Amino acid sequence: MAKKNLKLRVMVAPTPTIIAAAYDENGKADACTLAFYSPISHVPPCVVIGINANLKRKTLKSILHSGAFTIGYPSADQVKEADYIGVDSGYDTDKLANVGYTVTPGQTVHAPVIDQMKLSLECKVVHTATVGGHTQITGQITNIQAEEDILDEKGRVVLEKLNPLIYDEEGFSYHFLGEPFAEAFRTGAQLKKSLGR
Amino acid sequence: MAKKNLKLRVMVAPTPTIIAAAYDENGKADACTLAFYSPISHVPPCVVIGINANLKRKTLKSILHSGAFTIGYPSADQVKEADYIGVDSGYDTDKLANVGYTVTPGQTVHAPVIDQMKLSLECKVVHTATVGGHTQITGQITNIQAEEDILDEKGRVVLEKLNPLIYDEEGFSYHFLGEPFAEAFRTGAQLKKSLGR
Repeated sequence: MAKKNLKLRVMVAPTPTIIAAAYDENGKADACTLAFYSPISHVPPCVVIGINANLKRKTLKSILHSGAFTIGYPSADQVKEADYIGVDSGYDTDKLANVGYTVTPGQTVHAPVIDQMKLSLECKVVHTATVGGHTQITGQITNIQAEEDILDEKGRVVLEKLNPLIYDEEGFSYHFLGEPFAEAFRTGAQLKKSLGR
Repeated sequence: MAKKNLKLRVMVAPTPTIIAAAYDENGKADACTLAFYSPISHVPPCVVIGINANLKRKTLKSILHSGAFTIGYPSADQVKEADYIGVDSGYDTDKLANVGYTVTPGQTVHAPVIDQMKLSLECKVVHTATVGGHTQITGQITNIQAEEDILDEKGRVVLEKLNPLIYDEEGFSYHFLGEPFAEAFRTGAQLKKSLGR
């Protein structure tokens, strides 16, 4: 198989799409859509987000000011709203009101939970670092809220019901999540056993 | 819609699955499969990974020692190998050799590129932080290698050909990436225009 060196860039493969939200210094909710987001620690549960520091984004300022944010997972049927919240600016307009979204204060942190998100994480800022052109913000999850209709009887999120947005910058498109096809841990454990390990 | 508070945990929604690889102090290649991974900066292009610091994982030690690592994207047809590399330990065995994987030194950093990965990023460590139980490592991408057969004529990665693994810890399963269904930026720009913005 022949390999080729590609032009340097960071978005070469799909990422989840989330909406980060925070209160500004006047207590007004603001949000922005991000693809730079990952779980980053199990205990305590932490996530990390990256926001462009050079563009002076309002949500970045609000998060750093308030020390808290929420992460909302838009569903595929909210793709218009999610994409719009990523392209307009909170300095000029109320993006959330423009799409008919409402917020409720978080139960554990001073950050707005977008009512229309089926799954939301409340996070307090525990670490920040500016690396490259972006500020990395690590948030410890202090509460998780989910719509009951996306949960199974054990309280687990059923991904087919969450129907999350997957972002592909190579093709500038949003994808659905596909079907499950292999069991985690068991698949590897079986191979391990067959190797005599 | 009724919302419910969930038990705290970090993996409530899907993440990409990648294999991080590094050379240990003896120049031996080692790898581990991770779900804690995201692009985090556009300019310069940087990614962040999170590795459990308490478990004293060999790959973490190797990355911190060498100051470099690679990120490989396993395809869905490599799920057995990818899951296995996540469950066995490099201290006890040569995980890569066990699954028949070979490596080539990176072109830009002292880190091994797994030959069988269709898409690999070479990264130099530019920032580390231990937050919660995990070490966050930010790496600047210094080279990208891709199989020619996953690229289109413009050198963009065709995700259907990469066929990446998406991990779901709620259901302990690996998912396929689904179909594209909406254009990024244009979808939001159209809504913005219709709002008179």
